[in-house]
Amino acid sequence: MGAAAMTAAPLMAAFRTVKGFRDFFPEECAMRNYIFETWRAVSRRYGFMEYEAPVLEHTDLYRKKSGDEITAQLFCFEDKAQREVALRPEVTPSLARMATARHRDFRKPLKWFQIGSCFRYEEPQEGRTREFIQFNADILGDANEGADAELIAMAIDVMREFGIGEEDFVIRLSNRQIWTTYLAERNIDAEHTGAFLTIIDKIERAKPEDTAKKLEAIGLTLADVRAFMDGTNGDHPAFAALRENLTARGMWQFVRIDASIVRGLAYYTGTVFEVFDLKHDLRAVAGGGRYDKLCALMSDGSVDMPSAGFAMGDVVLGLLLKKTPGAQFRIMDYMAAQFGVDAYVIVADEPQRVHALAVVQVLRKANVRVEYSFGPQKVGKGFQAAEAAKARCALIFGNEYPQVAVKDLVNRQQTMVAVEDLIDNVLALVKSPKQGPLIANGGKKS
Amino acid sequence: MGAAAMTAAPLMAAFRTVKGFRDFFPEECAMRNYIFETWRAVSRRYGFMEYEAPVLEHTDLYRKKSGDEITAQLFCFEDKAQREVALRPEVTPSLARMATARHRDFRKPLKWFQIGSCFRYEEPQEGRTREFIQFNADILGDANEGADAELIAMAIDVMREFGIGEEDFVIRLSNRQIWTTYLAERNIDAEHTGAFLTIIDKIERAKPEDTAKKLEAIGLTLADVRAFMDGTNGDHPAFAALRENLTARGMWQFVRIDASIVRGLAYYTGTVFEVFDLKHDLRAVAGGGRYDKLCALMSDGSVDMPSAGFAMGDVVLGLLLKKTPGAQFRIMDYMAAQFGVDAYVIVADEPQRVHALAVVQVLRKANVRVEYSFGPQKVGKGFQAAEAAKARCALIFGNEYPQVAVKDLVNRQQTMVAVEDLIDNVLALVKSPKQGPLIANGGKKS
Repeated sequence: MGAAAMTAAPLMAAFRTVKGFRDFFPEECAMRNYIFETWRAVSRRYGFMEYEAPVLEHTDLYRKKSGDEITAQLFCFEDKAQREVALRPEVTPSLARMATARHRDFRKPLKWFQIGSCFRYEEPQEGRTREFIQFNADILGDANEGADAELIAMAIDVMREFGIGEEDFVIRLSNRQIWTTYLAERNIDAEHTGAFLTIIDKIERAKPEDTAKKLEAIGLTLADVRAFMDGTNGDHPAFAALRENLTARGMWQFVRIDASIVRGLAYYTGTVFEVFDLKHDLRAVAGGGRYDKLCALMSDGSVDMPSAGFAMGDVVLGLLLKKTPGAQFRIMDYMAAQFGVDAYVIVADEPQRVHALAVVQVLRKANVRVEYSFGPQKVGKGFQAAEAAKARCALIFGNEYPQVAVKDLVNRQQTMVAVEDLIDNVLALVKSPKQGPLIANGGKKS
Repeated sequence: MGAAAMTAAPLMAAFRTVKGFRDFFPEECAMRNYIFETWRAVSRRYGFMEYEAPVLEHTDLYRKKSGDEITAQLFCFEDKAQREVALRPEVTPSLARMATARHRDFRKPLKWFQIGSCFRYEEPQEGRTREFIQFNADILGDANEGADAELIAMAIDVMREFGIGEEDFVIRLSNRQIWTTYLAERNIDAEHTGAFLTIIDKIERAKPEDTAKKLEAIGLTLADVRAFMDGTNGDHPAFAALRENLTARGMWQFVRIDASIVRGLAYYTGTVFEVFDLKHDLRAVAGGGRYDKLCALMSDGSVDMPSAGFAMGDVVLGLLLKKTPGAQFRIMDYMAAQFGVDAYVIVADEPQRVHALAVVQVLRKANVRVEYSFGPQKVGKGFQAAEAAKARCALIFGNEYPQVAVKDLVNRQQTMVAVEDLIDNVLALVKSPKQGPLIANGGKKS
């Protein structure tokens, strides 16, 4: 940005997005849609069905899950009728509300996925915005560890579908019950479990002396905890079923046992896992696990549905896609398909516009993407616009009508075609292969 | 609902959606996706590019457009830092903010569309929810009436793409300038234009005596206004260009000139139109028009982009789709394709599960939708689950492995296939035609 821009008066608030919120211009929106379509494609293969919950929920829904102390990051407010409402920070509480309300209507297990915005009120930073999009996949009403394995396999397949490979990411896997057993074996009172898991959650980032002090307060030593963590690997019986299952699928090599993974959210009860990139030291791309008690909690005990799930956000994923060449090639192909039009119609002689419009309409009915100028346009400008729109061909309606000039913009050949043969001619042309992918730029000037 | 349910204690707020907000269970979500995909398909054919704006904007953005008096229906609040923010009631102000901020980066005209939630704070009623989804299509930076015609054609093609035909809906078309001219010819001061258009907007619903009184206050008579309205038809020169254009496309028969259409939103300057159903007396399905001054207003005069656009909501459209048989057939086809799985894998002998999982993974890699039970399952239950999931075939892994039983659930034939031939066999089967559309029910029990 130049000096002029730096000294310009600050923009009015109305001209800016709200802090931490994002505009999606066509290129960014196409990127977002690519991510959505990839999530959907894998979910469909796994037999999951899509649902959506409201972006605004009663604040009580989050209080119910987390206790009266609502997290400082909750984007909550009072509406005009003094209802306490919140822009959802996550979707799982809404899912539990929906699934328990109508659990009798669906076959178990429910295999549901969702894609939509979530919100948190905190300082924006790299990989953290106030509005972000999450993909949620959950299996409700199935206590079998095969469901946990299915979700981990799904997370791996989502990453691979994006072109992110074995050298790019890893699943960090643990199980909260190994710590429950650890505490029981050392006669630590169960009331310390929550505090203890919070210590473990922060153990990689906190100062060792602080961690040691906190552990001593509940009767443990850092040395013992460390030794247990170091000794916990894929041979631990807690992982036997997952190991057999994911090995059978050819996926166990993506997994690293990491006992420090406990997940921040209070509701996990068993398997917990996170998806991490291996090269760029980003935040977790995705995370999830088993939460067997949440549905009972959310329904005041009336519906018992052991469940598991994971969530993947679009922001860290987007950073990783940008940094991964194998992912970039797929994105370029997708973008080229999004932004090219098939035919650009040039009206060289205004009295022919009515004939041109009739052809535009018929081509569109045949699912051909057509652009043209809404007003008079010089032929040279028309060709420039056709090139800019990455059109496969240009159709020129001049005073030779009912003969129409068809120019193949890849082979650069122009032929005259009678209007009664025009549609077939154009359909054949736009369905023929192009020479390499086009460079798409979301309609921006080149 | 039975007597027991009626006397049950009221649900806690946390168990309900916020008033006027909607859950999308799988069937509703598939219906929503069908609407989205139809909007996208037509937009692509018309060469429009998708964008998205934040759902939360500075309240000033709407103040800027509407003046200091913020409408009572605005869903606005203060965030934790006392910022005045609002859940967007419409997308056009955000679009104008985005387009004017980066207008130099894009070729004119910008042809952009958007799909997303909007919000209003008012009493929910049929066809009106507090959260609703809008499709917005706009052409920015083009003053030609050909752009207005393109948008009307697009609205018509969207309706037809849904299977809503000529006998089901109509475009009510007008132009605000016919009233500006009318007032000028009668020497009515321009300051009365806003009040006058408000009277016309309500003329079909208000009592004639009230309308007459209001008109007299600005120096007009109801008889004269009525005579002008009745005399305004497709021959009026204000509609000549649109008539020629839409006639060329074979679409003029969808249009009815209706001078009472002025559109509530203050920013329209020329063409205005609404899409109405013809049979069910619903609210407008869509509406829009030309707004040549909005971009200049939103950029404090720095960017002049004459523009036009329309918006279509999902709620009234959804009601109309339900009531239109031709639309229902298309929905049934879409639903059948969404909810059936291709293959259901039954593990009849648990030691074979590892082999079954390997096959599940390979099939999914070939984009086959596969389901199976995550834990042990009786073979009979497996077949029931396969039928419930509308599977094309069941694969049974028993102790005959490496022979696998493949049951065609349409033709009811079962054959044994060696595992090395299994993938090709299943791929051939799931790509073969089914007998008629399946009845899809979003995973609900039948």
